[in-house]
Amino acid sequence: MTEDHPHEVEDAVARRLDPEDAQLALARVQDQLRRHALVEHLVHKQEDGDERAPLIEGMLQRQHENELRALVNSLHPADIAFILESLPKEDRQMIWQLVRAEFDADVLLEVADWVRQSLIETMDRADLVAATENMDADEIADLIANLPPDVVAEVQKGLTPKERAQLIEAMGYPEDSVGGIMDFEMVRVRDDVSLEVVLRYLRRQEALPDHTDQIFVVDRTDKLLGTLSLSALLVSDPDATVRDVMSTDYLTLDPMDADAEAAQAFERYDLVSAPVIDRRGRLIGRVTIADVVDVIREDSDEQALSRAGMQEEDIFAPVVRGIRNRAPWLLLNLCTAGTAAFVASRFEDTVSHIVVLAFLMSIVAGIGGNSGNQTMTLIIRALAVGRVTSQNAWQLIKRELVVTLLVGTMGSVAAGGFAWWISGSVPVALVMMAAMIGNMLVGAMVGVMVPMVRSRLGKDPAMGSSVLLTFATDSLGFFIFLGLATIFLI
Amino acid sequence: MTEDHPHEVEDAVARRLDPEDAQLALARVQDQLRRHALVEHLVHKQEDGDERAPLIEGMLQRQHENELRALVNSLHPADIAFILESLPKEDRQMIWQLVRAEFDADVLLEVADWVRQSLIETMDRADLVAATENMDADEIADLIANLPPDVVAEVQKGLTPKERAQLIEAMGYPEDSVGGIMDFEMVRVRDDVSLEVVLRYLRRQEALPDHTDQIFVVDRTDKLLGTLSLSALLVSDPDATVRDVMSTDYLTLDPMDADAEAAQAFERYDLVSAPVIDRRGRLIGRVTIADVVDVIREDSDEQALSRAGMQEEDIFAPVVRGIRNRAPWLLLNLCTAGTAAFVASRFEDTVSHIVVLAFLMSIVAGIGGNSGNQTMTLIIRALAVGRVTSQNAWQLIKRELVVTLLVGTMGSVAAGGFAWWISGSVPVALVMMAAMIGNMLVGAMVGVMVPMVRSRLGKDPAMGSSVLLTFATDSLGFFIFLGLATIFLI
Repeated sequence: MTEDHPHEVEDAVARRLDPEDAQLALARVQDQLRRHALVEHLVHKQEDGDERAPLIEGMLQRQHENELRALVNSLHPADIAFILESLPKEDRQMIWQLVRAEFDADVLLEVADWVRQSLIETMDRADLVAATENMDADEIADLIANLPPDVVAEVQKGLTPKERAQLIEAMGYPEDSVGGIMDFEMVRVRDDVSLEVVLRYLRRQEALPDHTDQIFVVDRTDKLLGTLSLSALLVSDPDATVRDVMSTDYLTLDPMDADAEAAQAFERYDLVSAPVIDRRGRLIGRVTIADVVDVIREDSDEQALSRAGMQEEDIFAPVVRGIRNRAPWLLLNLCTAGTAAFVASRFEDTVSHIVVLAFLMSIVAGIGGNSGNQTMTLIIRALAVGRVTSQNAWQLIKRELVVTLLVGTMGSVAAGGFAWWISGSVPVALVMMAAMIGNMLVGAMVGVMVPMVRSRLGKDPAMGSSVLLTFATDSLGFFIFLGLATIFLI
Repeated sequence: MTEDHPHEVEDAVARRLDPEDAQLALARVQDQLRRHALVEHLVHKQEDGDERAPLIEGMLQRQHENELRALVNSLHPADIAFILESLPKEDRQMIWQLVRAEFDADVLLEVADWVRQSLIETMDRADLVAATENMDADEIADLIANLPPDVVAEVQKGLTPKERAQLIEAMGYPEDSVGGIMDFEMVRVRDDVSLEVVLRYLRRQEALPDHTDQIFVVDRTDKLLGTLSLSALLVSDPDATVRDVMSTDYLTLDPMDADAEAAQAFERYDLVSAPVIDRRGRLIGRVTIADVVDVIREDSDEQALSRAGMQEEDIFAPVVRGIRNRAPWLLLNLCTAGTAAFVASRFEDTVSHIVVLAFLMSIVAGIGGNSGNQTMTLIIRALAVGRVTSQNAWQLIKRELVVTLLVGTMGSVAAGGFAWWISGSVPVALVMMAAMIGNMLVGAMVGVMVPMVRSRLGKDPAMGSSVLLTFATDSLGFFIFLGLATIFLI
């Protein structure tokens, strides 16, 4: 049931575990690479004059390479992955060549998606097959999109029928589902044996799968009957049967559950692993906290990036890719800002009469957006943890409107004072105050409604909400302010 | 070494573990509470006319309460905490009264900080002492700020001298340090005993501490010599000695490390627990993945909130607290927007000559801010994972400037077209294009420099950066655009 995992972290030879050390190593790698480039540069400059130059170059470069090789291979595979992610593509590929073959599999699995392709590019077929053939089925499934078809065919041949079935199963689940993050390495036992038998059975294994905090109790048809924590196994009387000691009260996951749901369950119940069962209650896989932590981190990273209208990007990727990542969002913002400007331009007469309105209107728009953003942030969070129900939605909306109204009233005094100071006109100041409160209420309404409606429609409440919010508070902010000014000041 | 933990999750009687069930339970609780309130309302309305009313009311309310009590107490303490967090204060306190006393400790430890106080308020001294006295020292330390002094005094009396020392130690570490999240429950063994002895020793415990994936090997002075994973313990020959099987290659934490650093290490090396040692290498505590997951989640939540200028807030807190949470940020934004408006107002003459500039200038400011925000988001992320070093900083800056310049050039064509359409003037369009590219470069510079400088000064690169960015792109956007217009168009 458990296999030999030559590429698992535990089996790696003694190396320091410390992210700070990895950062120091990165600085040293960069240093070496610079010297390396310098030598190349110098030698090339005087190449014509001296036929010994290539020789010297070769010696020096070999020395550099040896130092780099020793340095990199003394690191944990996760740290090697970190260093590769932190280097421009050419340096990355050069360092990758120096990594010991036995780390290839681990590093390939550790690096971010946007780096993996550039590593695989440099590997020949034999290396790739060697790196892949000892992976578990779920790991191969994660990699398969990046592998050349002939390598996939070759690796497949080496799998047992069971592993091949697992590979096909793992490939069938969406990336952001429980099926997409589960693995197949589990210890299974029957419920009628004694703990002594279980202990003897475990002793025959070479190692337990990573993150084994419990083993699964199944019947003949693989139906999950209970879980036996290692803790219970260790503290209980060895003569007790599994059935007496196992827990029948555990969380199970469905392979089609969203991975974010699994993450919420792991967080709330402090789990280390959880069984995945199919519709008929049969054990098909296991999710571990290591994958869940990655899900939590990736979701939080994605959110931060998508708020700025971007996707994950290789910070050393060609400029073209950077442009493709950022241009759409900026263009979208250009369109909404253009529309708002167009709305404002309908009041050209008013503004040409009272020019100071031009300088005040951006304050009205900006504060409405900021205030709405606060409301939206709170609502998105409350939705994410499932705290908003149909019963308290109305309470929440009321509270947001009241808070906004009061903050707006206070703020409008300051803004009105500023308007009075800059324009010397009390009517302008009054219009400013009214417009600001009005636009902040617009912001609060949009900030509440957009995420709630999106969530009701089954969509991610965060995505795109901020564009809509800015669009509303800009356009309506200009409209309210200049509209009021047209009515009362002209 | 391990104690009885009557409040630990494992010991809770059979209950379903599923966050979705908890959400359904929340809806049912809200439903019951509404009916409860309805009865109260109806009875009060006809109270004068009918002396049986209080009797009926009492009966109905008792029935409701019993249903609520059964429902709430069938949940996992973490789910009870979720429900309490999702209710307004009065309902929350009413439900809290119905929670079985033996869950009190667990729920108090699970709820968010902003809820805990409102729960403790309703408890009398004896209940509080009862709930607290079985907690571990590190758990009491987490709660102590919320406890009345006389309860603290009482609870302290019940501690052993060792526990009291631990409590004092735990209270001494900052909240966001490793010392602030570590616990003291660990299994320690000597390196010269056989695994058989370790197994026998474990069998004498009632349970292992939560999240025990390894036990710690120490010498007579408690100096950490190695770690023995349960996996190794279970698969190895029982006659082997601990020394032969233990790993000497493990991550150790310092109690003064930032908790975010520990989180990074757990993520990178897929840890479940890690030992904390003092300067002299002595084992003083342990950090587990459950606390680390909380740290990751809280940091990500805090970041999202602080980006909108807020702190964690009870969504049902009195309106006053909501105002206090939001007003400072909005006032700050009002100041920066006011300054930008003041800068623009220095060009009143120019704007009064060419009114259309008033409508275009907010586009220039907005796009500069959005573009700078993209750059800043990338840089903050790269800094957070330690990917920016003194050697590649310059490369990063260059790349950002080039990407921005190219995206800006493309975008400025669209913006120029719009300006030409709205103003009918080619010179205005050209000024618009130049100002937009210029302000986007301002955004890129600020977006790179502010986080880098803050991080160099040892400060959180994210905090406050966005205010500075908006301030720069607004004020300078107006200045560049109106300045160019004054020079070339007037």
